[in-house]
Amino acid sequence: MKFDKPYILKEVASWIGGEPIGDASFEILGINEIHVVEPGDITFVDHPKYYKKALNSAASVVIINRKMDPPAGKALIYHTDPFVAYNSIVKRFSRFSPASDRISDSAEIGEGTVIQPGVFIGEHVKIGKNCVIHANVTLYHDVIIGDNVIIHSGTVIGADAFYFQKRADGYHKMISGGRVIIEDDVEIGANCTIDRGVSADTVIGKGTKLDNLIQIGHDTVIGKNCLFAAQVGVAGAVTIGDNVVLWGQVGVQKDLTIGDGAVVLGQSGVSSSLEGGKTYFGSPAKEAREKMKELVYVTRIPELLERMKKENTD
Amino acid sequence: MKFDKPYILKEVASWIGGEPIGDASFEILGINEIHVVEPGDITFVDHPKYYKKALNSAASVVIINRKMDPPAGKALIYHTDPFVAYNSIVKRFSRFSPASDRISDSAEIGEGTVIQPGVFIGEHVKIGKNCVIHANVTLYHDVIIGDNVIIHSGTVIGADAFYFQKRADGYHKMISGGRVIIEDDVEIGANCTIDRGVSADTVIGKGTKLDNLIQIGHDTVIGKNCLFAAQVGVAGAVTIGDNVVLWGQVGVQKDLTIGDGAVVLGQSGVSSSLEGGKTYFGSPAKEAREKMKELVYVTRIPELLERMKKENTD
Amino acid sequence: MKFDKPYILKEVASWIGGEPIGDASFEILGINEIHVVEPGDITFVDHPKYYKKALNSAASVVIINRKMDPPAGKALIYHTDPFVAYNSIVKRFSRFSPASDRISDSAEIGEGTVIQPGVFIGEHVKIGKNCVIHANVTLYHDVIIGDNVIIHSGTVIGADAFYFQKRADGYHKMISGGRVIIEDDVEIGANCTIDRGVSADTVIGKGTKLDNLIQIGHDTVIGKNCLFAAQVGVAGAVTIGDNVVLWGQVGVQKDLTIGDGAVVLGQSGVSSSLEGGKTYFGSPAKEAREKMKELVYVTRIPELLERMKKENTD
Repeated sequence: MKFDKPYILKEVASWIGGEPIGDASFEILGINEIHVVEPGDITFVDHPKYYKKALNSAASVVIINRKMDPPAGKALIYHTDPFVAYNSIVKRFSRFSPASDRISDSAEIGEGTVIQPGVFIGEHVKIGKNCVIHANVTLYHDVIIGDNVIIHSGTVIGADAFYFQKRADGYHKMISGGRVIIEDDVEIGANCTIDRGVSADTVIGKGTKLDNLIQIGHDTVIGKNCLFAAQVGVAGAVTIGDNVVLWGQVGVQKDLTIGDGAVVLGQSGVSSSLEGGKTYFGSPAKEAREKMKELVYVTRIPELLERMKKENTD
Repeated sequence: MKFDKPYILKEVASWIGGEPIGDASFEILGINEIHVVEPGDITFVDHPKYYKKALNSAASVVIINRKMDPPAGKALIYHTDPFVAYNSIVKRFSRFSPASDRISDSAEIGEGTVIQPGVFIGEHVKIGKNCVIHANVTLYHDVIIGDNVIIHSGTVIGADAFYFQKRADGYHKMISGGRVIIEDDVEIGANCTIDRGVSADTVIGKGTKLDNLIQIGHDTVIGKNCLFAAQVGVAGAVTIGDNVVLWGQVGVQKDLTIGDGAVVLGQSGVSSSLEGGKTYFGSPAKEAREKMKELVYVTRIPELLERMKKENTD
Repeated sequence: MKFDKPYILKEVASWIGGEPIGDASFEILGINEIHVVEPGDITFVDHPKYYKKALNSAASVVIINRKMDPPAGKALIYHTDPFVAYNSIVKRFSRFSPASDRISDSAEIGEGTVIQPGVFIGEHVKIGKNCVIHANVTLYHDVIIGDNVIIHSGTVIGADAFYFQKRADGYHKMISGGRVIIEDDVEIGANCTIDRGVSADTVIGKGTKLDNLIQIGHDTVIGKNCLFAAQVGVAGAVTIGDNVVLWGQVGVQKDLTIGDGAVVLGQSGVSSSLEGGKTYFGSPAKEAREKMKELVYVTRIPELLERMKKENTD
């Protein structure tokens, strides 16, 4: 997420009670996790195992729990608990606020768009032209919707990421500061859930169609003209190409990539990245032809057992 | 779906910019897809492969993209894009309209029925006697509910079918003109989704009980006294008999039939039609006894491998 | 469930048209099913197979369909249909009532708690301090929520148990009289469903985090600091320990126990109780290591078949 304006190192360090290391007037433009960080961003690292990755990333400033010289052209903020420090910055820029009305004053709604009764629209939501938002849909703050989008009843867009850090006293929540972007011509079925990004955006690409009861995790980016059948679940930080088809009740684990034109058959469980242009089946998912063969092989085990028994008798 | 009144061939052709072939005063009573078409209906066909099927179906009028003589007693409408023409007729008769109130003026609600806060009821909905519709339920237009029905919160009945035609420029939506019919004594859990038929009706039979988070696709017809556990997903155009039990997270593919009294164990994936009176398990689902045996066979492979290894050593 | 005050045997028998057997002034404190019954409770039994279990249970009074002497220190109520009699007592004490407002007068809401628009809160709901209840959440009556709890949009807490008795004329519903208890620091995702207990309580333990579209059945008790990913389904009367992790789309059958610290991998189907501290996979679920080995074994069947073929040729 980008800040509303640049802030200088000294000021950001003061928000979190950290110690700036480097030029006090160094400008910070936004905040992101390590895997989506961009130049100008601040990120954090709290384990020596990841120090090198963080310091060599695109981040301009790193919150870190060891004092050291910053890499060339970068700055650091020393803090004993970088996760807490990072979270408190995200929270400062998060635009959730208790609402008194069903449709926030800051929402922008395009011409020809129908908003049915019972819809909740949070702060800073933008909806394009000629959309239909059916009854009892919930759009949290900072959800951006294109033109000609249809969202069916009960669907919830922009709830928090399911993202926690386990500590001795239980799970600590990573605050979600990202957005959800729904591009033009998307249709989303009833009672779906599409979480906002933690620091980046969750994106549903142009022309993609989702059936009912589908889960899309935080920071997941789905391409154009995909088709997902009912009860599909996609975890967080997944990247899905264009023209991908996921049949009913497919599950996709976090951090994976699925290539353009892949087809995943019903109830499959995707536990590793998939090349595009192929058809997959099974839990864990394999190429469907291979999996289908395995299903036949299993039915031939009795022959093998019979043979073994016979040999033992001979 | 039936029209509000009969329309003549000439008039219907003029709506869609098509060319009537046959008696201009030929009467058309309704519109349906090929597999549910009835005498008096208009249907469409856009691929030569299906011409014969459409022309020999019960349809009285066929929208077709080739000029030819109509079969005896029937009429045709020539149109270069029958899918688009068909869709535009359905749309003309679809009764969805933007609502200003949570309960439409045209809704009929029976004596003794409780409607909790936050419920949305669309146009032309009928609800029988002594029902309870819990908070935040959504009933789209043209949903028909019998007596003594209980619908739990968050459930959405009558959203559009998930039915698209793939074209060069992306997915084109088949407009849903059918209804949902919920018969007497049905109970539906929380956050379920039951889609309307595309041209016919989605039906939940008398006395059937659905748990939470269940998906029922368009045009699916479910018999009497069935029991479906939570998170079951049934695709479109499925026919399920009476007294069928589907345990949790079962998935059923489209266009299949499940016979009376079938039992499908948890997480099974039904990919072909099932005979009644038997118990099934697995993904894809088989008779449970057979599947259970296979699960045991697999555990005996190490013995077989051991034997082979020993033979190779000998 | 406990009654609002003690009632005497004679009075309770009169409610249901039953015949009291024992001291007419015997006090009854509450009502529960056989497996959760406590001293002072009334329960029921309608099949000779279970007479002994019911009469030897902690129950102080048993509704039974055979006349006999009560065990020492207990009383009976003779009734020809104990299930119906039991249900009618539960119904008498159930606190569901048609609501005119979105937030009931009897609800208690703690300091610092945010209730977003469109939330429904039934009778006798208690919500602690510093909670956030997001838009369009539904809390049925008798839901008890601790401090610092977050509930995301569309979630439904306290719907009826999915619990029916099959009879010649169809399914008869077991009336749900229990509660739901959500302890401190719990976060529940969007569009989840958590059913109330039939006679006891459904409990989500302190610090537990649920993702979206999760189903938790009636009377299920979940420990502290558990983590359940999206689309998990847990049936009724399940007992889950502390620090249990269920990955996405896992299903758990009814009446089972899962020990502390167990981890169940995605899409697994738990069909028997699981020891704590281990990792499980598959449908049905086994220890993950074992299951992973089986998946490899299956890929070696072709070698075995090849060998058999060769032997047959030799």
